[in-house]
Amino acid sequence: MSHDQSPVLGVTVGDPAGIGPEISVATVVRPEIRRQARAVLYADPAVIERAAAIVGTPARVRVLTDPADASDDPGTIDVVDLKVVADADQVAFGQVQELAGRAAVASIEAAVADAMAGRTAGIVTAPINKEAIWATGSEFLGHTEMLQELTGAEKTDTMFVLGELCTFFATRHMSLLRAVQSIKQELLVGSINRALRALQVFGYESPTLAVAALNPHGGENGHFGREELDEIIPAIEQVNTATGAGVIGPIPADSVWHLGLQGAFDGILSLYHDQGHIATKTYDFDRTVSVTVGLPILRTSVDHGTAFDIAGTGKAAPQTMISAFEAGVRFSARNQAIAEAYPSQATPSS
Amino acid sequence: MSHDQSPVLGVTVGDPAGIGPEISVATVVRPEIRRQARAVLYADPAVIERAAAIVGTPARVRVLTDPADASDDPGTIDVVDLKVVADADQVAFGQVQELAGRAAVASIEAAVADAMAGRTAGIVTAPINKEAIWATGSEFLGHTEMLQELTGAEKTDTMFVLGELCTFFATRHMSLLRAVQSIKQELLVGSINRALRALQVFGYESPTLAVAALNPHGGENGHFGREELDEIIPAIEQVNTATGAGVIGPIPADSVWHLGLQGAFDGILSLYHDQGHIATKTYDFDRTVSVTVGLPILRTSVDHGTAFDIAGTGKAAPQTMISAFEAGVRFSARNQAIAEAYPSQATPSS
Repeated sequence: MSHDQSPVLGVTVGDPAGIGPEISVATVVRPEIRRQARAVLYADPAVIERAAAIVGTPARVRVLTDPADASDDPGTIDVVDLKVVADADQVAFGQVQELAGRAAVASIEAAVADAMAGRTAGIVTAPINKEAIWATGSEFLGHTEMLQELTGAEKTDTMFVLGELCTFFATRHMSLLRAVQSIKQELLVGSINRALRALQVFGYESPTLAVAALNPHGGENGHFGREELDEIIPAIEQVNTATGAGVIGPIPADSVWHLGLQGAFDGILSLYHDQGHIATKTYDFDRTVSVTVGLPILRTSVDHGTAFDIAGTGKAAPQTMISAFEAGVRFSARNQAIAEAYPSQATPSS
Repeated sequence: MSHDQSPVLGVTVGDPAGIGPEISVATVVRPEIRRQARAVLYADPAVIERAAAIVGTPARVRVLTDPADASDDPGTIDVVDLKVVADADQVAFGQVQELAGRAAVASIEAAVADAMAGRTAGIVTAPINKEAIWATGSEFLGHTEMLQELTGAEKTDTMFVLGELCTFFATRHMSLLRAVQSIKQELLVGSINRALRALQVFGYESPTLAVAALNPHGGENGHFGREELDEIIPAIEQVNTATGAGVIGPIPADSVWHLGLQGAFDGILSLYHDQGHIATKTYDFDRTVSVTVGLPILRTSVDHGTAFDIAGTGKAAPQTMISAFEAGVRFSARNQAIAEAYPSQATPSS
């Protein structure tokens, strides 16, 4: 693969008081990573110098302005300078601080701008700290909401990628009680259709999708709950009748991921947050990657926090970031399809 | 290990129209299994001859009456003759039939009688078919209910064993909605105490137990559900105050099994059926063993069905039965502690 052909991924290093810079550096200095793609870290050089010392890599930090100039040499860490943190000592590890919040926001803004302009093939994001973001005066509820606003996206869904298997969520951040009460045919039809579309956009040509059951043993014909009979089966039938998609299910939740991870289907619709989270993260915590569907740009992410308790100690394992980067590489060929499927609805801010 | 010291485990082969006989034979003819324990199959010799042919083992079937005579030679398959099925052709594969139901019941009755009398160190059970059992006129709701009645047990709990980690269940066969509504302090205190006791009885001297959270992210301080604050934390505190047990939690369900499988604790209390089932079975379907706690005898079991669709074809993978047998070997040293902790409450029937 020549320089011209190797994709460039933008990496936001997250809150510089957390493990983000370390795990980002540890990822991009790996030769097998740089054989797959080039990388640009959106960060202050001083922060990355400090992270490189923590990781113990001899790679040198190089500042560039155009991601097209990025190197595939793992001895070079390419950085787009945020010009927020002049001296790494200004950011203490493991603390909520306004300067760190500003750096995290600047990293996301710059990375999004380059990805929206087509200067990178997508972004890979390290964890931020919400309180540090709020300390800057920002009112974003979270990472994804910020990306949604910056890219002018209409609606986003989370897709977990673990190996070849994609997991979608019909409901997410709400109590389990509310999630159970939300399992209605109309909601499920929307979730199933969006999951099918996402699988196609992300490169599964004739995707196979299974829907997890809500109740134990799939409800055993109404003995342990009627949602399968009254809502889930009708939703699957409605989609299959309308689209011929051949969606499968409901399949008892304690076997559907087991089957999916053996290759039985491309995607699984999880009905509540923990259902898909328990399955994927228990199976392989470090290789479960979060992908945001609905943005006009490719975004993959680790799905853990800033780990303030171990930031700066060198103890942070980079495997989740490596997995997120590799998922970014894999889907970078789909960045055009992503931009077309989920066009920006507004003039992006910033 | 000499003949005198090697434990003898009784194996109920389940419904002879299902995969039970095949996977039982495939398990006990393995040299590494017979190095760990001797085995007696409670079955009709004709059924086991047929299963041996399907498995393709040259081992010979030997009928004995006293399990103490069992051999540790993997070339010998020791059988206690049920005298129900004279000719294997009387039982067609993959069909619900009264004769198969009678054989399944006879196997359980004989194995329980020997275990209760101390002639075996415990039982390992292959799957039965409820409809075949009902065809015999029996009204048992299931396998465990039958064992409960036969052994005069008061109350039973299911414990899943996966490696060194034990999973318990606060609720099981009910709709997810009802399970959520059942998560109350009083119920949890009982579940936690029974789990702690079971861990001790099964050989964990100072057991560490974690309780899974109900809501995403453990409810995020009441934002996504109040059960953690109102029921789960008070239950844990009540037990810890009363016993000093140091029970941990609630821990978000998408990390508690990940941590437990890394050795962070000995046991986890799952709050609803699928929570613990998704975690263990997605992690390793074939090595998740079900153990019934509360019987005066040791009982380990596969946690799948009779697989009528592949019975007799030789396609059935025996790994679940191997895992159940190995868990039986591991806990056979605890059979005295089990009998003392959960004494029979009645004269056993049969």
